[in-house]
Amino acid sequence: MAEEIAQNEQKNPYLPFGDRQDAPFYGKDILSVKQFTRQDLEYIFGVAHEMREMVQRVGSFDLLKGKILANLFYEPSTRTSSSFTSAMERLGGSLIPINEVHYSSVAKGESLPDTVRTLECYADVIVLRHPEVGASELAARYANKPIINAGDGIGEHPTQALLDLFTIYEELGDPDGLVITMLGDLKYGRTVHSLARLLSLYDVQINYVSPDILKIPEGIFAEVEEKGVPQTENSTLEPVLQDTDVLYVTRVQKERFEDPSDYDSVKSAFIITSDSLSIAKDKMIILHPLPRVGEISMEVDDDPRAAYFRQMEYGLYVRMALLAMVLGKS
Amino acid sequence: MAEEIAQNEQKNPYLPFGDRQDAPFYGKDILSVKQFTRQDLEYIFGVAHEMREMVQRVGSFDLLKGKILANLFYEPSTRTSSSFTSAMERLGGSLIPINEVHYSSVAKGESLPDTVRTLECYADVIVLRHPEVGASELAARYANKPIINAGDGIGEHPTQALLDLFTIYEELGDPDGLVITMLGDLKYGRTVHSLARLLSLYDVQINYVSPDILKIPEGIFAEVEEKGVPQTENSTLEPVLQDTDVLYVTRVQKERFEDPSDYDSVKSAFIITSDSLSIAKDKMIILHPLPRVGEISMEVDDDPRAAYFRQMEYGLYVRMALLAMVLGKS
Amino acid sequence: MAEEIAQNEQKNPYLPFGDRQDAPFYGKDILSVKQFTRQDLEYIFGVAHEMREMVQRVGSFDLLKGKILANLFYEPSTRTSSSFTSAMERLGGSLIPINEVHYSSVAKGESLPDTVRTLECYADVIVLRHPEVGASELAARYANKPIINAGDGIGEHPTQALLDLFTIYEELGDPDGLVITMLGDLKYGRTVHSLARLLSLYDVQINYVSPDILKIPEGIFAEVEEKGVPQTENSTLEPVLQDTDVLYVTRVQKERFEDPSDYDSVKSAFIITSDSLSIAKDKMIILHPLPRVGEISMEVDDDPRAAYFRQMEYGLYVRMALLAMVLGKS
Repeated sequence: MAEEIAQNEQKNPYLPFGDRQDAPFYGKDILSVKQFTRQDLEYIFGVAHEMREMVQRVGSFDLLKGKILANLFYEPSTRTSSSFTSAMERLGGSLIPINEVHYSSVAKGESLPDTVRTLECYADVIVLRHPEVGASELAARYANKPIINAGDGIGEHPTQALLDLFTIYEELGDPDGLVITMLGDLKYGRTVHSLARLLSLYDVQINYVSPDILKIPEGIFAEVEEKGVPQTENSTLEPVLQDTDVLYVTRVQKERFEDPSDYDSVKSAFIITSDSLSIAKDKMIILHPLPRVGEISMEVDDDPRAAYFRQMEYGLYVRMALLAMVLGKS
Repeated sequence: MAEEIAQNEQKNPYLPFGDRQDAPFYGKDILSVKQFTRQDLEYIFGVAHEMREMVQRVGSFDLLKGKILANLFYEPSTRTSSSFTSAMERLGGSLIPINEVHYSSVAKGESLPDTVRTLECYADVIVLRHPEVGASELAARYANKPIINAGDGIGEHPTQALLDLFTIYEELGDPDGLVITMLGDLKYGRTVHSLARLLSLYDVQINYVSPDILKIPEGIFAEVEEKGVPQTENSTLEPVLQDTDVLYVTRVQKERFEDPSDYDSVKSAFIITSDSLSIAKDKMIILHPLPRVGEISMEVDDDPRAAYFRQMEYGLYVRMALLAMVLGKS
Repeated sequence: MAEEIAQNEQKNPYLPFGDRQDAPFYGKDILSVKQFTRQDLEYIFGVAHEMREMVQRVGSFDLLKGKILANLFYEPSTRTSSSFTSAMERLGGSLIPINEVHYSSVAKGESLPDTVRTLECYADVIVLRHPEVGASELAARYANKPIINAGDGIGEHPTQALLDLFTIYEELGDPDGLVITMLGDLKYGRTVHSLARLLSLYDVQINYVSPDILKIPEGIFAEVEEKGVPQTENSTLEPVLQDTDVLYVTRVQKERFEDPSDYDSVKSAFIITSDSLSIAKDKMIILHPLPRVGEISMEVDDDPRAAYFRQMEYGLYVRMALLAMVLGKS
């Protein structure tokens, strides 16, 4: 691992120290991937990389000691809330966990603006998960303290996209020149849309592989095309796999198909096994936002190219970086 | 804000340092507003004011480092539990959050005395929210460690009343000479009853404004009268508003009315808008225990007299003070 | 209390310092009572005893500062999760509390191996409570970080058995020579089975007292017999009570009986009152895993022999010891 870090250090894909002295995200909200330039990303990932090194060396440190994060989850997400909890704690900060909003003031009809204005009396930063598109923006409009969007319905989940991209940086270095293949449900997959948007800031190629009814939305495709990124659409993985540097797998849900037999006829094409990887490069990586339910078979876990659990860990470093940044401590 | 604090400092409404050296609340329970003398209140608010200054200067400090608060909530209350959580964390302490009592040992039939005697093996102080009147007293009878009542049914919610009064102190100074007007549901409003009791220790005037069916209970009225506090009862706000220094708003719930049309006929009289405030003093404040659901329109939030979000913040300082006091650290 | 500790120190029932310098549990899982030798137990209890002295002297200390415990509870258990929470916090560590697994990723069908491999990206140790026998072993097979079994269905609950035995050590010293009587539901009582197994490492006598349909399982009886521990089976307590040093009480649930009148005819024999204790030794102790629902009457609580609340406290020290040990800090 230390060696791997050293390698990446040589590549130095991040914004160098001298260029990021002015804490550009201090007091800012993190609402959408659209708010970031490539320079922003290199800044964030530079901080996240330092977080990684610090955690691996000392586990935790007191950068945010005395700071409080309110984890305001209007719908459950153990993975995301645990990740932010750990991020805050590894930086020495504390938590106000609010996981059962439906039982509480909100059930009494309180508006989101009132809830966040109350919470910011108690906390220094609010992480918000909400089922409605635009909830984070609404919250940010009323809150004086930073809001971090941890998913608002079918809208955005920017920290997920950032951790996906940071995984690529840490595993393969600067994304320029890479071929990224996205597989599965590209229509409803919020993470796929956000990652495609972020990748459009780079000199990459994107392949989409999906059942016909789950293709990438035209809007996203057009947005990425406008940035000059070459894209291909495919119904099977095999033709594009051997050139792929990053295989981003998402689940194809049976319920999306009107006729279950349509699902059965395509599903095997969207399950990754050791066999299906035999034609893939030696130095490529497989990502997955998790949880998975069978779309990557467990035998693949031992393949060094299976990066999805490391991806979870990179998520911790990205969230540590974001918390430190918005609180002015990066 | 600093200036405002300075002003209040000049007034010095709190018990001076020399007079509060003996930690009168160390190891004590906080069960009812009835347990406090005016001197007690000045002591508590003196500590709370110091907490405010410390938080505003340094955010958090390690006064209660190593101490553990068990937040035992038999019914949900995000606002109150978040406030205590923040109070403990800003003092460097830790939490055992217990929010789902109905799923747990209690569901197995365990008695409250057994639950608190178990919890006090793990924690240094217990904050208890319970749907039954008298639950806190029962708990305190069995526990060796301090119990803080965070609301027991339609009974008491002493820390809410304390924060309401502390808000008056911090915003307007010593309450003597002030006119306090309470508006809305005065019959069922637990916070109104407790605040009226506390105010009866001062040289104030209290106006009650409510629909006829939601008048202040005779018992409370008599109790306050006995202390020599002048009180008036009213069915509309206008006549008393212009003399009011503190307007305490609570919600009128439609469900309280047998005939919904009765509600519709009175409700507009109990909604505060910028218009309705045009005749109010320049230096008065509007309080609300929150959550609100329409009884103060959002346009009022920007009025400097709207103190209800600051009130939430004062609640933090009062709870910090109480925790420090019962743990012998004030 | 200090005196009592001093007494126990004289007995010195624990493994002496010189013999336990090599951190034998560092990085290990705690899955079953079957994994412990008598020497292991003396090691663990020696550390737990030091934890007790430290807590009683200073309350908390920063042995695990910066470490994170994920409390992964697939079924609720306020008592056990609060105990681990307190243990981690009294050692200066932090928590990721996961109490509502059924609402979250797992509801989306994620496997236990995936969940623990994700969580170990965020935490340093995982405490797992799960309704299925063998869940902890499965988790431990996939996790790189230590798993502590906090109960897996009708399987094991090793930390409960350890705290039961530690209570005996702290209250009465080395168990050799003691008579332990187990009362109540011995068929389904997971804690009874585990404690009997642990006790079979000592030179004790065990009496079982239960209704006929709730007798100790033959398998457990045979296992203990093989170790040469004398055992007796009884249908009433009286004949064995006067020789008893440790009376371990568990609840007899009415639902276990096909015919409710059968329950009514036996229940009084399984309720401990001050009266029933009149023939017991002066220096004996009554244990109960709690919660209790009537099987020990509250009047007994004031009897110094009633050790069940102290038992809860010993549980804290045992869990502190285990956390410190598996994290290499004992």
